[in-house]
Amino acid sequence: MAAVKSDIEIARAARKKPVVEIGARLGIPVEALAPYGHDKAKVGADFIASLADRKDGKLILVTAINPTPAGEGKTTTTVGLGDGLNRIGKKAVICIREPSLGPCFGVKGGAAGGGYAQVVPMEDINLHFTGDFHAITAAHNLLTAMIDNHVYWGNAENIDTRRITWRRVMDMNDRALRQVVASLGGVANGFPRESGFDITVASEIMAILCLASDLKDLERRLGDIVIGYRFDRTPVFARDLKADKAMTVLLKDAMQPNLVQTLENNPAFVHGGPFANIAHGCNSVIATRAALKLGDYVVTEAGFGADLGAEKFFDIKCRKSGLLPNAAVIVATVRALKMNGGVRKEDLGVEDVEALRRGSANLGRHIANVRKFGVPVVVAINHFISDTEDEIAAVKDYAARHGVDAILCRHWAEGSAGIEELAEKVVELAESGQAKFQPLYLDQLPLMEKIEIIASKIYHAGEVTSDKGVRDQLKAWEEQGYGDLPVCMAKTQYSFSTDPSLRGAPEGHIVHVREVRLSAGAGFVVAITGEIMTMPGLPRVPSAERIFLNDDGFVEGLF
Amino acid sequence: MAAVKSDIEIARAARKKPVVEIGARLGIPVEALAPYGHDKAKVGADFIASLADRKDGKLILVTAINPTPAGEGKTTTTVGLGDGLNRIGKKAVICIREPSLGPCFGVKGGAAGGGYAQVVPMEDINLHFTGDFHAITAAHNLLTAMIDNHVYWGNAENIDTRRITWRRVMDMNDRALRQVVASLGGVANGFPRESGFDITVASEIMAILCLASDLKDLERRLGDIVIGYRFDRTPVFARDLKADKAMTVLLKDAMQPNLVQTLENNPAFVHGGPFANIAHGCNSVIATRAALKLGDYVVTEAGFGADLGAEKFFDIKCRKSGLLPNAAVIVATVRALKMNGGVRKEDLGVEDVEALRRGSANLGRHIANVRKFGVPVVVAINHFISDTEDEIAAVKDYAARHGVDAILCRHWAEGSAGIEELAEKVVELAESGQAKFQPLYLDQLPLMEKIEIIASKIYHAGEVTSDKGVRDQLKAWEEQGYGDLPVCMAKTQYSFSTDPSLRGAPEGHIVHVREVRLSAGAGFVVAITGEIMTMPGLPRVPSAERIFLNDDGFVEGLF
Repeated sequence: MAAVKSDIEIARAARKKPVVEIGARLGIPVEALAPYGHDKAKVGADFIASLADRKDGKLILVTAINPTPAGEGKTTTTVGLGDGLNRIGKKAVICIREPSLGPCFGVKGGAAGGGYAQVVPMEDINLHFTGDFHAITAAHNLLTAMIDNHVYWGNAENIDTRRITWRRVMDMNDRALRQVVASLGGVANGFPRESGFDITVASEIMAILCLASDLKDLERRLGDIVIGYRFDRTPVFARDLKADKAMTVLLKDAMQPNLVQTLENNPAFVHGGPFANIAHGCNSVIATRAALKLGDYVVTEAGFGADLGAEKFFDIKCRKSGLLPNAAVIVATVRALKMNGGVRKEDLGVEDVEALRRGSANLGRHIANVRKFGVPVVVAINHFISDTEDEIAAVKDYAARHGVDAILCRHWAEGSAGIEELAEKVVELAESGQAKFQPLYLDQLPLMEKIEIIASKIYHAGEVTSDKGVRDQLKAWEEQGYGDLPVCMAKTQYSFSTDPSLRGAPEGHIVHVREVRLSAGAGFVVAITGEIMTMPGLPRVPSAERIFLNDDGFVEGLF
Repeated sequence: MAAVKSDIEIARAARKKPVVEIGARLGIPVEALAPYGHDKAKVGADFIASLADRKDGKLILVTAINPTPAGEGKTTTTVGLGDGLNRIGKKAVICIREPSLGPCFGVKGGAAGGGYAQVVPMEDINLHFTGDFHAITAAHNLLTAMIDNHVYWGNAENIDTRRITWRRVMDMNDRALRQVVASLGGVANGFPRESGFDITVASEIMAILCLASDLKDLERRLGDIVIGYRFDRTPVFARDLKADKAMTVLLKDAMQPNLVQTLENNPAFVHGGPFANIAHGCNSVIATRAALKLGDYVVTEAGFGADLGAEKFFDIKCRKSGLLPNAAVIVATVRALKMNGGVRKEDLGVEDVEALRRGSANLGRHIANVRKFGVPVVVAINHFISDTEDEIAAVKDYAARHGVDAILCRHWAEGSAGIEELAEKVVELAESGQAKFQPLYLDQLPLMEKIEIIASKIYHAGEVTSDKGVRDQLKAWEEQGYGDLPVCMAKTQYSFSTDPSLRGAPEGHIVHVREVRLSAGAGFVVAITGEIMTMPGLPRVPSAERIFLNDDGFVEGLF
């Protein structure tokens, strides 16, 4: 048996085509592509605007069971399915998120798929790529600089500096920046105040860029950002500080979707990457919409498991942008289902059909949940070499009893050849006309009621609790006109509950909303349950220590 | 008379050629160019390495008298001279610095030349360009994160956190970040300590990138960075924290020169932009060297006036990289010379030959100074419409009495057609064999003696003073093996003295060295005189308030 190649070895052996050829296959003229090197390009705003009257392709969401340390392979399956659809003769486009730079130097590997289902050039995608996140960092910090500058020069808006909620961002894992006191050193440096930094992907601007339909909409949303409150408690908007237009200038290129390719030379948009807890965790609306105009099938993914990712994809991204999903794929692995059934990671190599059946309750609930949005479902079993035939049969069996197919996929090892069956099934579902998409709750319900609906219908919680301060805040926002916004749940991704150790399909648990935040520009209210880390730290031995440029100019140690 | 067009109107009307055509004129094959859009590209490392055995072209430095609010037009003249040389049939390449993003949102206009002597695309060059500065920001802050992380996980290197000299950077004018206390908020966020942010162009990494000969040399220099001191006072290097290699990975693309074009479609490298006070203020060595291999003439500039810019170009950049300048152009304007002669800005429109003669002493000293490096000189009079014939004659006269030609240049209004005479003269000087370049002082002199030589020979100071602490520090570095480094003077750019209001050619003044800093990776010791601001603030009404994207997608208000 041949040695298994690493992701990076496979990626480096890829025979990439010039990105203009990838664009040409989608009918994008070379003038509409701004190349970044020969294998990455941005698609121009004018060209995207010119597509408005075209018919949309079918939209396929790839989501997953709750993540476990065993790994599920959602991005890998998204990429594989895109390749599979192209293999069976469909014009399919992949839409995924851009990875964050900072975590690459911590513990995280790359985020461009794996095995024979990857997007390339993976080193670039994982590092600076086309500079989108740097642009977001700059726009975010320009606004902060303008806030402190406004206060410094007399504070004409009467901003209560204790109530400034807008922080700074950096695309780096740096725990030392979580909480700082700035403007020290005397009069020339301003008025000292407490603040801090989040990682760039946690910036509201990331969410805004991913939900904006075009540059005009981007500018409007940037103006809508609430940066804090005046002494009279009225909100201060970014447009009050005249920062919105210059921020738009900084983001004009970042707003355009990035085109790259899979290992099999199929087109992939990799654009935007908001957090999936305090934000909605999906790639940009502009990329998804452009892809729908250019392809017959668009395969996209949502962050974390379906309880967070799919719910936000449907209730935030699709609701607000009018996207109509035609089918959903829920990715599961035998190993992850066994962990959901109580097997420890070190025992995953041993067949355990019983544990797998127990853990499948997690899959079952995600299937039922996705169907609540009116979207037909198929399960993808992402194959691992240790899977036994009985285990695979048990998953298929379980899914069948829930009325859906579970299809074994070998795209990791075989590329598109290993995922044809899933591709065929997805086409069948998407073309069946079964999809009758509807969000989970109505816009006009009170904000707390929206939280309760998500908690009961999706999480199967028994109760939602919160302090009076939280409820008062939600009411205040309703009075200020934010009551129609959807809710963005910040919850652990590891469980349906707020307890990360509770795998499977817990029932009747309590969801405590600790804090709520307004993302007025992005257009959602964040409900925070448990501790949410928006600035990661580095581990004892950060992967940065092992990353280097080899003598051939290739990056080593990044994955 | 037709209305005078603004820089941005002229730039937008430019008929740009595809950057691959610009590259082809220099013999750069399309595979060796990584395009960023259709009008910007990076030149590949392998191609640059392949040029090593070629003969070098002639190197022309453009420098200037001490800057005044009247404006001198050094970059404009650099670009104009490049165009002029091409016009008279020479294969000339321009090498200038990249502008910093942050100051664009404060008061500063763009930095890509002006009138009919500009490099384009000017909006891109002034904003994110090819992401070089973002990469430097990321590399710098990765190192800082690794320092605090090292301390957090047990501080095996025994770093004295009070003696960490490495700060953070951001490419933004943000006075609130000059001095901060970080790692607040409890155990999980580390050990609180005072620190602060500089603007990215002030990062030592910027200077390193601009002095490194290739990626290997870059990595070695990054490892040499001293981030602070242990409790036993020994220096801690970036390589002690194993940060150097990952930083190199972040900088691998930033290290490659950026190719753009002038309004007249001539090639220009715009690469690197270190501060001209705490660093050496020149574009990258790798760009200058590549240009010398590709062109017969390379026109480059140095920051500020010749007392700082030219001195550092010669004593740091040329000394350390082996570049041999063949001629120097000193840019002056009638208006600026009149200001040096005591005329107020509001009176500059009135002819005043007497004041101009007085102020020409500033020009005269710069001429004499540049000649001390063995480089032949010509003066460029950058024409303003208010200049009178008598004033121009007076400058020519003054220069002639100092044995050099002063040539009237109308490139701002006329492009290359207005600067042919200067181009011819530069060719004559460069081909004359007159240049016998030598640095001002020998490597092996004590550091304080180097400072004294610069102060006496270039500034005409009477004395250099400093506290014992400064002298002890210089001695300590000499003992640690840093005695051979050149000195980088941080002094006001507005005067030969350390008093910015002292125009003309002051004599016998005192230069007080307030502080010294070691840039061990860049390879120089910084001597700070007066207050040096390494993090600017925004003005009361920042230009950000006026910057916007117009309906045609063009940036307005940036210039």
